[in-house]
Amino acid sequence: MSAEPASLPVTLADVRAAAARIAGHVHRTPVVTSRQLDALAGCSLFLKSENLQKVGAFKARGATNAVLSLSDAEAARGVCTHSSGNHAAALAFAAGRRGIRCHVVMPHTAPAVKVAAVEGYGARVVRCDPAERESTCARLAAETGATIVHPFEDPRVIAGQGTAALELLDDVSDLDVVVAPVGGGGLLSGTALVARAADVDVHGAEPLAVDDAARSLRSGVRQPRVESPQTACDGLLTALGVPDFAILSALRVEVLTADESTILRAARLHLERTKHVVEPSGAVPLAVVLAHADRFAGRRVGLIVSGGNTDFAWLCSPGG
Amino acid sequence: MSAEPASLPVTLADVRAAAARIAGHVHRTPVVTSRQLDALAGCSLFLKSENLQKVGAFKARGATNAVLSLSDAEAARGVCTHSSGNHAAALAFAAGRRGIRCHVVMPHTAPAVKVAAVEGYGARVVRCDPAERESTCARLAAETGATIVHPFEDPRVIAGQGTAALELLDDVSDLDVVVAPVGGGGLLSGTALVARAADVDVHGAEPLAVDDAARSLRSGVRQPRVESPQTACDGLLTALGVPDFAILSALRVEVLTADESTILRAARLHLERTKHVVEPSGAVPLAVVLAHADRFAGRRVGLIVSGGNTDFAWLCSPGG
Repeated sequence: MSAEPASLPVTLADVRAAAARIAGHVHRTPVVTSRQLDALAGCSLFLKSENLQKVGAFKARGATNAVLSLSDAEAARGVCTHSSGNHAAALAFAAGRRGIRCHVVMPHTAPAVKVAAVEGYGARVVRCDPAERESTCARLAAETGATIVHPFEDPRVIAGQGTAALELLDDVSDLDVVVAPVGGGGLLSGTALVARAADVDVHGAEPLAVDDAARSLRSGVRQPRVESPQTACDGLLTALGVPDFAILSALRVEVLTADESTILRAARLHLERTKHVVEPSGAVPLAVVLAHADRFAGRRVGLIVSGGNTDFAWLCSPGG
Repeated sequence: MSAEPASLPVTLADVRAAAARIAGHVHRTPVVTSRQLDALAGCSLFLKSENLQKVGAFKARGATNAVLSLSDAEAARGVCTHSSGNHAAALAFAAGRRGIRCHVVMPHTAPAVKVAAVEGYGARVVRCDPAERESTCARLAAETGATIVHPFEDPRVIAGQGTAALELLDDVSDLDVVVAPVGGGGLLSGTALVARAADVDVHGAEPLAVDDAARSLRSGVRQPRVESPQTACDGLLTALGVPDFAILSALRVEVLTADESTILRAARLHLERTKHVVEPSGAVPLAVVLAHADRFAGRRVGLIVSGGNTDFAWLCSPGG
């Protein structure tokens, strides 16, 4: 076990507490292997299949941990959030399980399939311009007394996301490295806390088209989100959150990038070789392994396959 | 247990023997459930996931049973077949495991992804016009001494295909009915032998665009294959085989149909709700349940989800 830097906003102990709290509420997802994928990638891949998680994404973990951490008085006033998709469905799901109200602010640009999923879980969806997501959410919280559960800055969410890596390291012995996608950084932060504590290497995986996290961690200065991004990875468009940046900086996590055609090739490989649906954001770890093959050659590589919610438009594009 | 009609070309005992022979060579595939699919369908669905089978389809079962049934002398001369796809990959896979030669005759119209799969398993592919498949295969067998393993008329193949239903009935108690797709009829024949013996109802599922099996069993006269079929179900284009027709007639199996838009909707539902890739042919059982909801309402329904090999062209078509 490596020592954890002092005073991180989230610790390994928080991740372990989250695992105990959410057990039985979310799936312990399978770890899938494929000899054909291994042959293509030149290493041994272990796919932590969060596309088979409740609501189709790892986000069920963090949202459930946050909702179950509320006091009864807090819970009675409900929860609210703003999200481009999977976190919204996840919070709606978690709130539904506890029987409390959930308000979700979603941009007009969110995919229809994700809006329908959120409403299907019983949440109230409030649409707004992408630029007004935070202000709309804050107003809702002030009006209703609901607790805001931020998709990747809430420490309870970060701790919950780390439980996927905890299970992966529990199920696969002698992993050399874990790769997780990075958007706001909640999943990667939780994953890094777990991996560093076990002396397992860890990398972030980010689309080249929205490489702000890679540049943030390289430069030591948190970079803003990329404007008008050209990528099918709708789950990875945001800039790093404040606590996420602090954790990833302290743990010296490097983010690797892959270009769009490699990401779409990876997403299609998941579908063809494992017969599991993976959304483009969830295929970025495999894309990074393909794009940086020399870094992973011959190693035992765990990939957090983060989600499987997609309308398949990318599959029908010229590059897909 | 219902009595089996006398003198069928394949019996339940053959299916049981096949199960013992192929154990350890093919996957015992999982049975997947989905509360969302149940709510849509109005019944309890149990998806026998042969899309997760070796080579991505149930065909691995019949081909493996056939190859493992050969004497050493027969095996030394290899095997050959003609097939539009999944049976070809399955025979190549089974031959490769036994370390014997395999020749596969494929029509020029076969999807590229399936040709590549067959060659990837080490078989020799011989392309020909669709109309010359049988003659080309017969010539190859005469030249090499290889044993022809027909995709759905070989009794060893029919027995092997029935093992999926055997496992399904083993894993799920109190099933009311099993639904399997029907093209040449090998899978449906094996399934019917197993279901009838357990007093479980059984239906075939066929695209309306190629409804020759439905008409054959209704009329009592084996109908020819539909010319120039308009369907994405490339695995179900053939007419019923001779022994298959005999078995399905004797067991009084009814075939239900679904139109193309319902089939494509069902295939997309598999992808969206279970996150598992299903080829259109494999989605016909779910389509039939959706199209004939009154027949299945409130029942416990097992679906043989037969395969997951597709190039996704159907998903990008206007109806998909």
